Amino acid sequence: MPTFEPADPDYAARVRASFARQLVMATLGATLRHVAPGEIEIEMPFRSDLSQQHGFLHAGSVTPIVDSACGYAAFSLMPADTGVLTIEYKVNFLAPASGSLMVARGRVIKPGRTVTVTTGEVYAIQDDQEKLVTLMQATIMTVRDRPDVTE
Amino acid sequence: MPTFEPADPDYAARVRASFARQLVMATLGATLRHVAPGEIEIEMPFRSDLSQQHGFLHAGSVTPIVDSACGYAAFSLMPADTGVLTIEYKVNFLAPASGSLMVARGRVIKPGRTVTVTTGEVYAIQDDQEKLVTLMQATIMTVRDRPDVTE
Amino acid sequence: MPTFEPADPDYAARVRASFARQLVMATLGATLRHVAPGEIEIEMPFRSDLSQQHGFLHAGSVTPIVDSACGYAAFSLMPADTGVLTIEYKVNFLAPASGSLMVARGRVIKPGRTVTVTTGEVYAIQDDQEKLVTLMQATIMTVRDRPDVTE
Amino acid sequence: MPTFEPADPDYAARVRASFARQLVMATLGATLRHVAPGEIEIEMPFRSDLSQQHGFLHAGSVTPIVDSACGYAAFSLMPADTGVLTIEYKVNFLAPASGSLMVARGRVIKPGRTVTVTTGEVYAIQDDQEKLVTLMQATIMTVRDRPDVTE
Repeated sequence: MPTFEPADPDYAARVRASFARQLVMATLGATLRHVAPGEIEIEMPFRSDLSQQHGFLHAGSVTPIVDSACGYAAFSLMPADTGVLTIEYKVNFLAPASGSLMVARGRVIKPGRTVTVTTGEVYAIQDDQEKLVTLMQATIMTVRDRPDVTE
Repeated sequence: MPTFEPADPDYAARVRASFARQLVMATLGATLRHVAPGEIEIEMPFRSDLSQQHGFLHAGSVTPIVDSACGYAAFSLMPADTGVLTIEYKVNFLAPASGSLMVARGRVIKPGRTVTVTTGEVYAIQDDQEKLVTLMQATIMTVRDRPDVTE
Repeated sequence: MPTFEPADPDYAARVRASFARQLVMATLGATLRHVAPGEIEIEMPFRSDLSQQHGFLHAGSVTPIVDSACGYAAFSLMPADTGVLTIEYKVNFLAPASGSLMVARGRVIKPGRTVTVTTGEVYAIQDDQEKLVTLMQATIMTVRDRPDVTE
Repeated sequence: MPTFEPADPDYAARVRASFARQLVMATLGATLRHVAPGEIEIEMPFRSDLSQQHGFLHAGSVTPIVDSACGYAAFSLMPADTGVLTIEYKVNFLAPASGSLMVARGRVIKPGRTVTVTTGEVYAIQDDQEKLVTLMQATIMTVRDRPDVTE
């Protein structure tokens, strides 16, 4: 696992402030669990009102937290005056998202001036057992000189 | 655009019944707008509590509706006694999801006995102007003989 | 289908010159078939020495031509002093690549200053019948101010 | 890293025999370097006739070896009487494929009865330095009862 030096020493405060403005995370009940240079974890308790037709969490309820984990993993390495946008991601669903807690982990594989490549996983936790349910590969963009995208 | 013959003449009722059990769709305020063989549209009004840090809809708030549009497009062509699961998808974010209404369209490109390939788009609508904001390519699985996945 | 205005009136000559320097295309026997703003076709005759274990063309023999079709579709809209790089793509294999001729089509869906999103298809042609065998969604980058990437 | 028990004790011979029938691998000069349950390495020396317009290896020349590494990683865990097909993959290009040798590694993340999820990387090696140039996430299918796809 590579280790990274953040360009902005205040990266953690910047990640936490931006996360707090993602209102959808509060709506989902998701919280930041771990913030490190190039590595972010977000957790979300199971909620039946986010389920799909078989009673598991809907893929679309789980994907936002791993998307955000990947995006903030990239953002944690960006300079202070930049913004972050997700260009695209690909996600495989490996097992039903059943369990009492979902933990999403995002990690930077290759940081770049403009394009950063990350991977993400979601683990469903039930009675101290972890099960890998989601695997993501995401491409994140560093945005400069756009006043509407500053975090 | 290819046209498809549904294997189950009651496909539309089956799609609507399954959609109604996706509680996350009610949570998002999403509704079925169009149901045809191999083609589904879902719409969702803008809601600020599903936004990201720049005030646009979070990618993760938009992705569930296009994922479901692709999944139900595939499901509409499946035999009556089968279930549907999303194997994986890839999604590009083309423009900020701003506007008063989001419309997701899913279409089958290649149906198969086990694997169906679909594409999806999300359009953001504001004052009768449509803007393409999301492009998806999704792989959907027909599930047989699994009592826990019957729709 | 959107139509595009090329930023460089000599886009076609620039695409053809760059294609001619992709030695792998000559190695594969691939040639440019159609060059228009935001839309490129490349064709390649079947060759048994590019096959996989079942006697069809190997996915890896077909993917380069649709990757190049998408990349040059994006490149055709870029300004004269820029280079092109593929950031990433996702590709589904829909049917065996069997037939006497493969035709790859790449189209721009959303051009951008830095990031262009494209889709691509490969059709296998046998006795005037076309069969869709490959579906791609690709993200292409405009490169500026890098002397090693000027086309 | 999970370890896997192969369903077929002769998995290695079966992988090697199938690889030998992928004529494109001989055409590319690619060879099997490592065969283990759920993990395959393929290597390929640099060749200028597989390059793109900037003199690096074309993405399309590198992608087949990591596609095959992922496919055979999945195949190594499949029962004796089955065949293997790539459903789809997504690949990011992280750095120019320059160097004297390319090494592709494919690993199974989640084996399944029908669908197996894998990840792959390509490393470019120059003067004993390794550089990660390609990152893949691939979905592989186990094929049963199809006489045309038996390996």
